[in-house]
Amino acid sequence: MSSTFGTLFRVTTFGESHGKAVGAIVDGCPSNLPLTEADIQPQLNRRRPGQSTLTTPRDEADAATILSGTENGITLGTPIALSVNNLDQRPGDYGDLTAVPRPSHADYTYLMKYGVKAASGGGRASARETIGRVAAGAIAEKWLKMRFGSVAIVAYVSSVGKIAAPDIVAERLTRELVDANLVRCPDTDTAQKMIAAIEKARDEKDSLGGTLTCICSGFPGGLGEPVFDKLEARLAQAMLSIPAVKGFEIGSGFAGTLMRGSQHNDVFVRKGERLGTKTNFSGGVQGGITNGEPVVFRIAIKPVATIGQPQQTSNLNGKAVTLEAKGRHDPCVLPRAVPIVEAMAALVLADAALRQEYRV
Amino acid sequence: MSSTFGTLFRVTTFGESHGKAVGAIVDGCPSNLPLTEADIQPQLNRRRPGQSTLTTPRDEADAATILSGTENGITLGTPIALSVNNLDQRPGDYGDLTAVPRPSHADYTYLMKYGVKAASGGGRASARETIGRVAAGAIAEKWLKMRFGSVAIVAYVSSVGKIAAPDIVAERLTRELVDANLVRCPDTDTAQKMIAAIEKARDEKDSLGGTLTCICSGFPGGLGEPVFDKLEARLAQAMLSIPAVKGFEIGSGFAGTLMRGSQHNDVFVRKGERLGTKTNFSGGVQGGITNGEPVVFRIAIKPVATIGQPQQTSNLNGKAVTLEAKGRHDPCVLPRAVPIVEAMAALVLADAALRQEYRV
Amino acid sequence: MSSTFGTLFRVTTFGESHGKAVGAIVDGCPSNLPLTEADIQPQLNRRRPGQSTLTTPRDEADAATILSGTENGITLGTPIALSVNNLDQRPGDYGDLTAVPRPSHADYTYLMKYGVKAASGGGRASARETIGRVAAGAIAEKWLKMRFGSVAIVAYVSSVGKIAAPDIVAERLTRELVDANLVRCPDTDTAQKMIAAIEKARDEKDSLGGTLTCICSGFPGGLGEPVFDKLEARLAQAMLSIPAVKGFEIGSGFAGTLMRGSQHNDVFVRKGERLGTKTNFSGGVQGGITNGEPVVFRIAIKPVATIGQPQQTSNLNGKAVTLEAKGRHDPCVLPRAVPIVEAMAALVLADAALRQEYRV
Amino acid sequence: MSSTFGTLFRVTTFGESHGKAVGAIVDGCPSNLPLTEADIQPQLNRRRPGQSTLTTPRDEADAATILSGTENGITLGTPIALSVNNLDQRPGDYGDLTAVPRPSHADYTYLMKYGVKAASGGGRASARETIGRVAAGAIAEKWLKMRFGSVAIVAYVSSVGKIAAPDIVAERLTRELVDANLVRCPDTDTAQKMIAAIEKARDEKDSLGGTLTCICSGFPGGLGEPVFDKLEARLAQAMLSIPAVKGFEIGSGFAGTLMRGSQHNDVFVRKGERLGTKTNFSGGVQGGITNGEPVVFRIAIKPVATIGQPQQTSNLNGKAVTLEAKGRHDPCVLPRAVPIVEAMAALVLADAALRQEYRV
Repeated sequence: MSSTFGTLFRVTTFGESHGKAVGAIVDGCPSNLPLTEADIQPQLNRRRPGQSTLTTPRDEADAATILSGTENGITLGTPIALSVNNLDQRPGDYGDLTAVPRPSHADYTYLMKYGVKAASGGGRASARETIGRVAAGAIAEKWLKMRFGSVAIVAYVSSVGKIAAPDIVAERLTRELVDANLVRCPDTDTAQKMIAAIEKARDEKDSLGGTLTCICSGFPGGLGEPVFDKLEARLAQAMLSIPAVKGFEIGSGFAGTLMRGSQHNDVFVRKGERLGTKTNFSGGVQGGITNGEPVVFRIAIKPVATIGQPQQTSNLNGKAVTLEAKGRHDPCVLPRAVPIVEAMAALVLADAALRQEYRV
Repeated sequence: MSSTFGTLFRVTTFGESHGKAVGAIVDGCPSNLPLTEADIQPQLNRRRPGQSTLTTPRDEADAATILSGTENGITLGTPIALSVNNLDQRPGDYGDLTAVPRPSHADYTYLMKYGVKAASGGGRASARETIGRVAAGAIAEKWLKMRFGSVAIVAYVSSVGKIAAPDIVAERLTRELVDANLVRCPDTDTAQKMIAAIEKARDEKDSLGGTLTCICSGFPGGLGEPVFDKLEARLAQAMLSIPAVKGFEIGSGFAGTLMRGSQHNDVFVRKGERLGTKTNFSGGVQGGITNGEPVVFRIAIKPVATIGQPQQTSNLNGKAVTLEAKGRHDPCVLPRAVPIVEAMAALVLADAALRQEYRV
Repeated sequence: MSSTFGTLFRVTTFGESHGKAVGAIVDGCPSNLPLTEADIQPQLNRRRPGQSTLTTPRDEADAATILSGTENGITLGTPIALSVNNLDQRPGDYGDLTAVPRPSHADYTYLMKYGVKAASGGGRASARETIGRVAAGAIAEKWLKMRFGSVAIVAYVSSVGKIAAPDIVAERLTRELVDANLVRCPDTDTAQKMIAAIEKARDEKDSLGGTLTCICSGFPGGLGEPVFDKLEARLAQAMLSIPAVKGFEIGSGFAGTLMRGSQHNDVFVRKGERLGTKTNFSGGVQGGITNGEPVVFRIAIKPVATIGQPQQTSNLNGKAVTLEAKGRHDPCVLPRAVPIVEAMAALVLADAALRQEYRV
Repeated sequence: MSSTFGTLFRVTTFGESHGKAVGAIVDGCPSNLPLTEADIQPQLNRRRPGQSTLTTPRDEADAATILSGTENGITLGTPIALSVNNLDQRPGDYGDLTAVPRPSHADYTYLMKYGVKAASGGGRASARETIGRVAAGAIAEKWLKMRFGSVAIVAYVSSVGKIAAPDIVAERLTRELVDANLVRCPDTDTAQKMIAAIEKARDEKDSLGGTLTCICSGFPGGLGEPVFDKLEARLAQAMLSIPAVKGFEIGSGFAGTLMRGSQHNDVFVRKGERLGTKTNFSGGVQGGITNGEPVVFRIAIKPVATIGQPQQTSNLNGKAVTLEAKGRHDPCVLPRAVPIVEAMAALVLADAALRQEYRV
């Protein structure tokens, strides 16, 4: 019952990694939005494995079909069901791992929760569940653009392991720039170092984590709800719901705790017709509500848990065993996480925007 | 419509900082739990301003009254309404600030959202809103203790500005230890440095931020829901919903991104009757579900936005002005945030625990 | 966790019949609505016991206090907490009944559900719980009038026992007309018969049920959501949630099942600028969405379960006993149910209206 | 955003009558329930058109596929996605009707709400939307049987037009008995009269309505929540959400308003180990919570709006026109509504049962 996200723009995802299909129902998307599969596929393609030597060779076409909610390429206001077939149904692939729960995977916790030894590759904890989110996020993003004009939601890889990229200003950041290299870091020099590090980790049968930064620009002030549904609270929930994410910070985040109030306060200045802030340590939100500045946040992604090296661990009976993974895996998932982060940000913003529409 | 939190253990808070009362309704608390105001007051007292020279001198008694949901000191299973009168109703106190929105406060964003120039001291963005949460959290915590026996939810101040405390093991951490000094840092030496830093900031009419760490121990595995209601996702939402919080990380968090998978994986070992993990970089959760290890997370709190120094900013018309705050304020809110963080953690865990009860 | 109603205009009620207070939190009411206690009190007064010899002599002042959500008589957009003190706290009054569950009351089912033998007069099943609804409904109604101009939500007693009133056209129906007699039936002759019947039942220590009809006029088309949140579905839920209500029908309702399609279909005719229907067997809704005609529905209220006559029943151990009620009670609750039905209708319509606002 | 029903056992439906597919996601079904398509198909078959000369000749195979949530025939605890292809995609079939909104259909109200002139046969207001409900209800029912043993949820046609069946006791009522004739009325004599009446209406290009009665037996006391989620309130919502339903009554319903309290009260008697009631005018619920007696309710279904006769109505411009329907239609939908009513009852009861599980 936790597969639904959002209050007015709601998405419910379904699907295990090795079942028949994965997908989502989007309920609450306004009517009269032009929408076909072609609006959804680009972000699914960016999420897809097998895009480069840096990611898993498992090539899944991941073609989305819209089953309902549109007619003649226009949304009806009714639920939009999206489905992506699992071409590569191999339920037995991880089967021999079930007796030995994979370290830092969800095998063990799912077993504790549900009491089922499922062979289906981690079930809902699999990254494949995110396909439904990416498809739904593409719809949210399209609506946001129709509603607010030139808004942009762009994420990029800001660090891989210890290699960090310099900051980039919101105005320069585009998806084209991000996609200019395999690792999706807009700084070319840093990108080369990241790629080398990932290849090294891959060759050593190890894995790397890192951080993603996302900038949402062009949005008006007033989005987000006070108290429990603060925009940053919903963004934090959205991001921590993505597999492997271990941290979230908005604006100055953890680094801001090192500053003093007199440095950290974002004083107001006139910016054309609107009131803006001189700095943006707040990350575009104050008291949970956007102030018109870019919404900037960063997330931490742990190193991939599936590694080629043997691991000394225990089976379910507590007996010490050596585990050797044979499955297909990425040495670093960060490049593929970019469209997932963008999708979740779009879902949060579309929901907040609809919730603000009804104000008198 | 964003003042409700939780699915089965639900809290709805109400109240502005300078209205008649603040409080909450807790709906979904199981029946037959012994409960009186005496169970709630201790955490409210820890949250209260005026506890020391480090916090605002505004002394508010903050005595909670249970209006419904109990009879003869036992919960009925019906909604528990809690109310705390605002003894100090001074709606005019911040009134002169409304024409000049306070930097890094919610004055401006509330105005954009609601179109009301409220004089009520930041309205729902005020820390006073958290009284309802702390009261509700005390009930959640009491139920968790009845349900699971010796569980503990303890937060402490882990850094103030650049002064950071060493890590502490879950077993040593108690509220008594935390409350042994004014700043609520369990390491005495660090606490002294923190206090000195806060006093210095106060004397310089400036403010400090920092981090809080919270450890929830004794909880069974299986709590938390996959996908959007992962335990870490709900904790992240809960924490980012607290005023001034700008970051959340669980387990290894951002530091974990510097590690490799082979170092970061928490391999399994037998721990008595249960399977445990040798390390706890996961922070007690895998795939959104507890694994039986302590749930450990950390949050970032920005330096207090209200400072005594004059600030160069703009009024609502975009005209440059100098703002001088006269209100009462804390130079550092971290010590008082401790019971708020504990309350929100208790609400998340109680909700997750109830959601797990119904499994067949 | 079932004390909350509504998606965007949300009310959460609290309070037992004999606790300290009853009330509600209204979350989601738009800002800038003029609102004081004076807007709420009239409907509370209409709901109040002790208005006539037909209702229970227990006179409770039921004065509502707004604890939050307004400033200077204007809503802030934040939660509006409402509280009404229980002046008449007599927890022992029904105490001796707990060992013998009262027939057709909730004593036995609450005990099965919660396992608490509460002496508090039926707890949440008491009609006193509806105070919070009536207060919240008054706010909803005020907003609806501000939003849509001359809308009207008027309920009246359409039958008492076997005495039924003739139909009344929407245009003639006003609260003033309804309140012109004690029984709140707009047809004077019928009203006299109803009053006589109620007095007779009262003298015979018995009770009567009946039906209420409610007409909501002036609302635009397009309100209500397809499928599970059809306007009639939410109205049905709202009405069946009122104590003692056993039936709901909209438009032609049960009588419509005796007609043929060719008679029952509401064909369209031009009505000034808009398209209307020649008849209104649909009761103002088609497919769950308003069509601009008056929304007309009717509810069934069972005869009051508390009667002065001795009853042959069983105690909790299954032993046959004779029960004699001593409490205060109405021989017929229908007149007092009028403002409750209006309040619930207002809550449903306000929620539907806000949900329609956000459409592009 | 109104396509989701339930709190813990949640169903979200999707699909228009003439799109690619219809279906549902069931989230919250407990794990370890044996489940395959064979458990779902029987109720879909009972709902299917083309079962007899009394229903529309449009024969749709309606074979459900489970896309997720099970493995090796066992539920995983994760969302169960169900899809049924629309074999008969004819979006143009009703296309010529859009300029003339069909009387007592949802064409006009959908247009007012969404501003889209969809040719898709009434869109979500179509009976075809109920396929997802019936599939989901079959899962709910299977879980209820596993959880509570010999429970039964059986609906039947209790009246067609003016022809009404005698009451039947819960013990005698089975689906086999109901299915023994085409009209699904368990009284053979009445069934023959109903069939004759339907055939006459069909031959006269007219349609009939009627009532369905549903009895849910074998359920324990304690199910249902007080106040807004009373079992009867959720049943009422569920039933009024079914296309063409105009009324709901539980227990004595509208007829009960003609009785006096002294007749209507259900006094308690010992029934074996438990306390039962001598009569069941309450319909198995008191204060919104089951008391262990059969839950008995009845619904009103209006005569089918699509009729073969020409109708004098107006087009969207308000011009008088004669409308002649050419589509395929049932003269009486009641027999096919039986599994839909059972499905919605099962969803309400499964949700209530799961919500009761977590009580301490």
